[in-house]
Amino acid sequence: MRRFATERAKRLLLASRSPPSAFLCSSPAAAMDPAAGVVTVDTINPKVLKCEYAVRGEIVSHAQRLQQELQNKPGFHPFDEILYCNIGNPQSLGQPPVTFFREVLALCDHPPLLDKSETHALFSADAIARAWQILDVIPGRATGAYSHSQGIKGLRDAIAAGIADRDGFPANPDDIFLTDGASPAVHMMMQLLTRSEKDGILCPIPQYPLYSASIALHGGSLVPYYLDESTGWGLEISELKKQLEDARSKGITVRALVVINPGNPTGQVLAEENQREIVNFCKNQGLVLLADEVYQENIYVDDKKFNSFKKITRSMGYGDDDIPLVSFQSVSKGYYGECGKRGGYMEVTGFNAEVREQIYKVASVNLCSNISGQILASLVMNPPNVGDESYESFSAEKNAILSSLARRAKALEDAFNSLEGVTCNKAEGAMYLFPRLRLPQKAISAAKAVNAAPDAFYARRLLDATGIVVVPGSGFGQVPGTWHVRCTILPQEDKIPAIISRLKAFHEAFMEEFHD
Amino acid sequence: MRRFATERAKRLLLASRSPPSAFLCSSPAAAMDPAAGVVTVDTINPKVLKCEYAVRGEIVSHAQRLQQELQNKPGFHPFDEILYCNIGNPQSLGQPPVTFFREVLALCDHPPLLDKSETHALFSADAIARAWQILDVIPGRATGAYSHSQGIKGLRDAIAAGIADRDGFPANPDDIFLTDGASPAVHMMMQLLTRSEKDGILCPIPQYPLYSASIALHGGSLVPYYLDESTGWGLEISELKKQLEDARSKGITVRALVVINPGNPTGQVLAEENQREIVNFCKNQGLVLLADEVYQENIYVDDKKFNSFKKITRSMGYGDDDIPLVSFQSVSKGYYGECGKRGGYMEVTGFNAEVREQIYKVASVNLCSNISGQILASLVMNPPNVGDESYESFSAEKNAILSSLARRAKALEDAFNSLEGVTCNKAEGAMYLFPRLRLPQKAISAAKAVNAAPDAFYARRLLDATGIVVVPGSGFGQVPGTWHVRCTILPQEDKIPAIISRLKAFHEAFMEEFHD
Repeated sequence: MRRFATERAKRLLLASRSPPSAFLCSSPAAAMDPAAGVVTVDTINPKVLKCEYAVRGEIVSHAQRLQQELQNKPGFHPFDEILYCNIGNPQSLGQPPVTFFREVLALCDHPPLLDKSETHALFSADAIARAWQILDVIPGRATGAYSHSQGIKGLRDAIAAGIADRDGFPANPDDIFLTDGASPAVHMMMQLLTRSEKDGILCPIPQYPLYSASIALHGGSLVPYYLDESTGWGLEISELKKQLEDARSKGITVRALVVINPGNPTGQVLAEENQREIVNFCKNQGLVLLADEVYQENIYVDDKKFNSFKKITRSMGYGDDDIPLVSFQSVSKGYYGECGKRGGYMEVTGFNAEVREQIYKVASVNLCSNISGQILASLVMNPPNVGDESYESFSAEKNAILSSLARRAKALEDAFNSLEGVTCNKAEGAMYLFPRLRLPQKAISAAKAVNAAPDAFYARRLLDATGIVVVPGSGFGQVPGTWHVRCTILPQEDKIPAIISRLKAFHEAFMEEFHD
Repeated sequence: MRRFATERAKRLLLASRSPPSAFLCSSPAAAMDPAAGVVTVDTINPKVLKCEYAVRGEIVSHAQRLQQELQNKPGFHPFDEILYCNIGNPQSLGQPPVTFFREVLALCDHPPLLDKSETHALFSADAIARAWQILDVIPGRATGAYSHSQGIKGLRDAIAAGIADRDGFPANPDDIFLTDGASPAVHMMMQLLTRSEKDGILCPIPQYPLYSASIALHGGSLVPYYLDESTGWGLEISELKKQLEDARSKGITVRALVVINPGNPTGQVLAEENQREIVNFCKNQGLVLLADEVYQENIYVDDKKFNSFKKITRSMGYGDDDIPLVSFQSVSKGYYGECGKRGGYMEVTGFNAEVREQIYKVASVNLCSNISGQILASLVMNPPNVGDESYESFSAEKNAILSSLARRAKALEDAFNSLEGVTCNKAEGAMYLFPRLRLPQKAISAAKAVNAAPDAFYARRLLDATGIVVVPGSGFGQVPGTWHVRCTILPQEDKIPAIISRLKAFHEAFMEEFHD
């Protein structure tokens, strides 16, 4: 009401300088109403208020302030740069883009280059050939036109072929929906499946907070299932069953199961046998399987292999009618790491034609995803082949990135495990470590005193002391009473030793300060 | 229940080939539950079902079928191409992209080009300079990294400068939120403002169906206000007031007013005096003003001029505290027409810091908009200047596109007005005509007999006879009992005479067939 009073006072004040023809509402009845509509946090959509996204939350805002201070007052902090280990954003930390992909994008952005002789000195022959191929499947070669709302058909053909190569089972281009990164695809499915808070989605805990945020924004219920840290973040069917039954007993209709493989923030890679169990669980329980497979290229250990859930279902003999399955893929991860291009797709199988039509309709409201992202999605699913001019250099770039990521993952994992009270599971895949912190009681009390979760308190102190940004485990969910942080493995390799020293020194000082 | 029975039968059938370790649910109580979750149109989010988007609706699906038939059976239809006049998608109909914009995009996609001597033969000097400028404001020159969730700060600086140049009033880069086209920005605001169906948004009728679709998806109420066709689609404050009071009397809290200027589908350009009245109306009634200004460069008559609502409010002496105002802009329209790049922004002013933070949070869940789209948005708001190497050719391209659009608008407007029973208002701006059809009673009965709206019936017959795709007025809303179609002015100029002949011949035959 204070705001309303102020508004009204201002209105009276301003009336004199309003143009004479202005419509001025003077009836008291009408004057009462506007207050109800004034936009404050108390009058906006409560689902928006409820939504949280820790990966870009408070700790990152604080890091940005520190970065500003570093620029304005060099030497003011005990570090000279902010190291953003909060987010899987490889190129922001210096990972170069893959040359072949960028060559093709540049040529498609400015097709007149293809007719110039100088172009052959600047671009590889197979990039030029690929750009022609792509332009030829775009109606009118118009890379600046809205496409079909699922994405350009010829690019979906290429993606379907890439999926078939990967899985050894056919894929249908009509099942592909190209999206601006994987996030809008996840939103689309949550929007489709959620009628009210009585609809639930089974999500891993810890989870990537896009899921909790999207479920909150669409007004559904997150039904948690806990990954077992003691078995390397194992996914146990008994736990799924228990949580499903518990949710059902509360009147929740569980619509879908989210599985993130390789795991985010937990980095584990599912075993094939485990995947089969998950598929049967979904099938028997009538659940949609939402498979977040954006880290499918990020595997760092020899004894694990990525298997798509599509391949698993088909290898079990299940076809399109047997199980609704959505697989999410993105150009932001893998060895490509093209986060800024916002490319991605979902492969949607096992829904009937009427439901499929509704998914198409929602996609069509936003017209289409960006064409560069669409092109890039087709490229990552069809990189250069043996014999292509770029093949050798492409393979060298790819292997350099992936092998370096594996070394960085191992070095950071070992470093965390060397810290007092910290245990860190193997980084089998993805781009993260999720070490568990066993903090002294004094630290927990100190956190409580400043109204912070203990892991948020630790992360804040780490940032202030070292410039390293990690995300508190509370942003992902964790077993109550346990504390973690998520740290990416993405800083460039030559910086890793210094990071590890800073981390160790900080941790020792922290434990010393709060020793019980 | 039939579906459930079938599912259960299949499950029993498949149990034998499930791997032995599979979790098989056998308790009858648990087996009852899955049926409730099976995904059919009866169990998905009813808001999704309710949402409609006519611009890519049934008529377009039919057109795509015809196009397929034309490919497979040339000569099968009385036309040899489908002319998509259903959507503002200029490059799909042959409008070339602006060279300078594409040069800069290509260089930013593949920055190593900037170090090569051949590049100077292929790109203009100012495109090279601009690419350097842009790369220099991107942290680490990483065009493949996620940016700040509002967009790259340096690009927002450039956009704010462009807005200030346009308006003569300052703009704040912190008010800019870059988005993948304007559509996600509109969704974000609707999501923020809508708590339930008791929250209403005042929208013009006819309207661009993104608004009705977005309001439906977020569960709010569209409060219609009718534009007055008899005064060139005039926006009357008395009508706004009447509809607002009517909605309030029904218990609706009206949150915002949508104004589309230049109008879509109606093509009118608001007079400055009218805009001042609208601003005062919003201010007095406590409404957020949502200003769809994506056609700001598309003005075709000498006596009209685009004025942003930001400029109008500031010229009235209102500042940031006086009125919540959101202006939407896109790279898809104007003379640039870069629909496939999905670039755009909203300028958000007049909200308090807490609400602003919530908008930022929602933006951050999707991380950021695509960087090429961000770069392009900065370019369209800061095109080449007098003296730049590209200035002459850039201006020539821009003027050729805009003057041709003006000629096409006039030619099609005249053609519609020459048809029996058809009246068409002046295309002052945007990319559309929205002629009114007065159809014979027999045609209305024939439409009813096939369960179609009369304008949908007309549009379908037009498509089948000529290959021209227009959207029935019912997709945009219209005064009950009146019928319209929306037709873009975008077919290439050399095709316009043939289109007009086909249109006239079809219309004459149609009127002849259904003569009362």
